Amino acid sequence: MSFRATVLTLYPDMFPGHLGHSLAGRALERGDVSIEAVNIRDFATDRHRSVDDTPAGGGAGMVIRPDVLATAIDAVSPRDDSRPRLLMSPRGRPLTQARVRELAEGPGAVIVCGRFEGVDQRVIEARDLEEVSIGDYVLSGGEPAALTLLDAVIRVLPGVMGNAQSGTQESFETGQLEHPHYTRPQVFEDREIPAVLTSGNHKAIEAWREAESLRLTRARRPDLLEPDETP
Amino acid sequence: MSFRATVLTLYPDMFPGHLGHSLAGRALERGDVSIEAVNIRDFATDRHRSVDDTPAGGGAGMVIRPDVLATAIDAVSPRDDSRPRLLMSPRGRPLTQARVRELAEGPGAVIVCGRFEGVDQRVIEARDLEEVSIGDYVLSGGEPAALTLLDAVIRVLPGVMGNAQSGTQESFETGQLEHPHYTRPQVFEDREIPAVLTSGNHKAIEAWREAESLRLTRARRPDLLEPDETP
Repeated sequence: MSFRATVLTLYPDMFPGHLGHSLAGRALERGDVSIEAVNIRDFATDRHRSVDDTPAGGGAGMVIRPDVLATAIDAVSPRDDSRPRLLMSPRGRPLTQARVRELAEGPGAVIVCGRFEGVDQRVIEARDLEEVSIGDYVLSGGEPAALTLLDAVIRVLPGVMGNAQSGTQESFETGQLEHPHYTRPQVFEDREIPAVLTSGNHKAIEAWREAESLRLTRARRPDLLEPDETP
Repeated sequence: MSFRATVLTLYPDMFPGHLGHSLAGRALERGDVSIEAVNIRDFATDRHRSVDDTPAGGGAGMVIRPDVLATAIDAVSPRDDSRPRLLMSPRGRPLTQARVRELAEGPGAVIVCGRFEGVDQRVIEARDLEEVSIGDYVLSGGEPAALTLLDAVIRVLPGVMGNAQSGTQESFETGQLEHPHYTRPQVFEDREIPAVLTSGNHKAIEAWREAESLRLTRARRPDLLEPDETP
């Protein structure tokens, strides 16, 4: 079973973008994943192929029309399509590694990429779009966000990562940031690898890594350690 | 003055990726921004061009060697280079729109993209790398994160956005999520544009938008409204 992504965008040439290389590129070549980019503009109905119009109530920017986008969604995702429909948006719920794993276990995703000021609210409601944010910053459009989300999802698909163990001890999989890493050479610019790591004492190494992971998480991301106190 | 980005990566072909299109693509063409991708492997010293080695203390994956990466950093960023040196990493501090604007006001950035398990901690310290995370999920490498960060930065460079007003009322610029948008047609699948937005009463429209923005932020991102309670 392969993961099937259909992306609705005004810039289909942005896909597969960086996903054509490395891990994701090989997954695409093998057919473990497919990414189809469909131009929303193909579903415009006027002779100018308009997809957007001025915001009701005034203001800057342009808003994507609900009728054009709904037609595009219905064309690529009929009613019996079980794939979730995502809208990349800074207003969305923040993407988490747990949601990435859920998506990877499913049949794929229909991903709508907004541009301009945004998308008409009525099509978000009428087509039950799940608004997803990849972080607290604003992008030029949904495309960089969709490519980022797909990279995270493809990475955890079965068979994509060479080393199956890699990935389960990483940041966000354990609820803490990962401990620091060291490798050869033993001495780099007068800095040595911490002695415990070359001691051969596996229990001590494990304890050091866990302590470092906790220390780093406390210093940088205390929010990850207090899930009950954050809403 | 243009924004100069130098990216250290094992996959230089991933750049400029999606940044070659749309807003960012035009900024690159005009020379408002430059993106140079440099292969870390070009700085390997053995005949196999190795850049990584097994982690000290054991475990899965491979770690990028400090000596090779330090040589690469020194080659692209001499001591008098005032650009910040970023390392894209899930262990980093979360990227914010404020940091995006700071970066955009500066001369550029040197961006290190990790792969495999990570980068030797000693080169992070010795070269004062600022670890930056774009979100709480794990990517195949730093490249998708670097492309996302650059998209956000390029978008706010002077002259890149067509409409200067667009951007200042958006999510994260005001500290709240943006209100819903509507545009033509007046009726879409029996759903009307909220009457207030077509009333012509600008004060009422402003009040409605502010109330919707607050309601949405409370429902989806209460953390944004209580900055004093989060660390």
